[in-house]
Amino acid sequence: MKHQVIYDTDPGIDDAMALWLLARSPAIELRAITTVFGNASVETTTRNALSLSTLYGLKLPVAAGAPKALAATEEGDYPAHVHGEDGLGGLAASAAPANELLDPRPAHELICDMVNAEPGAITLIAVGPFTNLALALQHDPTIVSKVKQVILMGGAFGTLGHAGNVTPVAEANVINDPEAADLVLTAAWPIVVVGLDVTQQVVMDEDYLSSLQGRGGKVGDFLWQATRHYQDFYSEVAGIRGIYSHDASAVAYAIDPSAFTLRRGPIRVVCEGMARGQTIQDHRNLGLPGGHPGRAAWTGRPVQQACIGVDAARVIEIFDSAFN
Amino acid sequence: MKHQVIYDTDPGIDDAMALWLLARSPAIELRAITTVFGNASVETTTRNALSLSTLYGLKLPVAAGAPKALAATEEGDYPAHVHGEDGLGGLAASAAPANELLDPRPAHELICDMVNAEPGAITLIAVGPFTNLALALQHDPTIVSKVKQVILMGGAFGTLGHAGNVTPVAEANVINDPEAADLVLTAAWPIVVVGLDVTQQVVMDEDYLSSLQGRGGKVGDFLWQATRHYQDFYSEVAGIRGIYSHDASAVAYAIDPSAFTLRRGPIRVVCEGMARGQTIQDHRNLGLPGGHPGRAAWTGRPVQQACIGVDAARVIEIFDSAFN
Repeated sequence: MKHQVIYDTDPGIDDAMALWLLARSPAIELRAITTVFGNASVETTTRNALSLSTLYGLKLPVAAGAPKALAATEEGDYPAHVHGEDGLGGLAASAAPANELLDPRPAHELICDMVNAEPGAITLIAVGPFTNLALALQHDPTIVSKVKQVILMGGAFGTLGHAGNVTPVAEANVINDPEAADLVLTAAWPIVVVGLDVTQQVVMDEDYLSSLQGRGGKVGDFLWQATRHYQDFYSEVAGIRGIYSHDASAVAYAIDPSAFTLRRGPIRVVCEGMARGQTIQDHRNLGLPGGHPGRAAWTGRPVQQACIGVDAARVIEIFDSAFN
Repeated sequence: MKHQVIYDTDPGIDDAMALWLLARSPAIELRAITTVFGNASVETTTRNALSLSTLYGLKLPVAAGAPKALAATEEGDYPAHVHGEDGLGGLAASAAPANELLDPRPAHELICDMVNAEPGAITLIAVGPFTNLALALQHDPTIVSKVKQVILMGGAFGTLGHAGNVTPVAEANVINDPEAADLVLTAAWPIVVVGLDVTQQVVMDEDYLSSLQGRGGKVGDFLWQATRHYQDFYSEVAGIRGIYSHDASAVAYAIDPSAFTLRRGPIRVVCEGMARGQTIQDHRNLGLPGGHPGRAAWTGRPVQQACIGVDAARVIEIFDSAFN
């Protein structure tokens, strides 16, 4: 039985790579795309999702979601230095947007409707800020028992040191909406978090990316070109001649969980002060009662799973299979 | 030239082990002991420091310090489950307190006086809550340029995962007084932090501790007995048949820094919310201007050093030399 997936995304270059894997994997039946602000404005990420649908030949609903964080009064800044002004490294105009796919519902309503229509069937893979998922929980809290699984790309658990990529402890998707992330992570649905602890181990180097040219119809050329800007960013900040493959790692988890090592424990998101946006898992007492009052924030919260190890070569092999 | 050391401590079983190393190392000239609340009340830790002075044959001033955290209105609880009701695993009565050593000054005044008397000479080794050091900074801010070096046992930087030992991110000395720790760590004196990232790698197992019996006069027997209670705690919470050697690791750093791997960057302490008591080092941009507003808390702060790696066998070898 294929995973029935709703992909919540803010394309975004690595989002585009992950979408190609979702579109091509025989283990996945992609049912809908929902968009969110993050790597660019939600207008831009929605247009990109529609353009990528054209490029990849997808026929499915695309629903536009949140333009800003739950607690935000206005839109913030977008990381053009990472994903380009157009969110796709200057390649957004490669295909016309498939505007006929645009669903009239807001993203969180589409999510609730699909989950309610097929209880136990839907896997949510979210790779942007988790605002749409939080709005869905607020819209219909009963979905927590009807979603099959939630796979989140985001967060950093410090197993590589304090591995935030925005602040010393905060990862971009989480710090873009910490209140939403805390709401999503403390809801009683089964979550696996694919954070920087593993995605920063999945480096696609320039030689590999170059080898995509000429593969997958026009897609290999497109992704090679789109990743040029993205790679420049990582070369500068991380000193790697390649890219971190964040979002494709989350999809790879859905396809082959055995490539990942998991750690169990309640997860909270810091919403205040200098650690805002940090994900913290209490993996020792698993949220059990008792102990120091400083553990109270985790006590009795749902036990979730965080990825703390990965077979990076296997993840790249899974991604590569999308071009076969 | 021997390190001229003031030892700020809350004995405490591992404090007692570290004090023996300070007393015996040919690289160290121990000049004074200052006491602080933490592993027990300051009355208890002061009595223990005086009793240990008798047992170890020390002749130096012992000054009592803070009974509670900077921001606390009253004393908190003490971890009798770790160090025993008497702070020394039931062995406090082994020697009579050397009450004649008690200095009339509060700890922070003794620190300021000694540092001012010999600018550039004094190394502070602090292994309890950092309240006395914070009070010293408030009493005389000029000491920052007169202290040779500050070595702190405390904190957790997540290089082993979120390695707090009180909350998922907070270490005991720091969470006992986060405001003091942040004040100390952001002062412009040269600090090395010896935190859980390294001290939890320095495990003295039961066989080793047992081998201390009959060595160092009565001291080996004393430390073997005193560590029985302490080991029971670690057996239960950490699943090790032995103890973490926190405080002796800080002293070992003073004796042989080459046994440690350091990481540079400003360090802040979270004082609010669920991450209260967490030490966070911005080791990427080193506090340089620019970047995300989320880095502002670190920008322009003094670059300090955190231990992130240790040759544990070497640290135990250094400790063992105290019995030769």
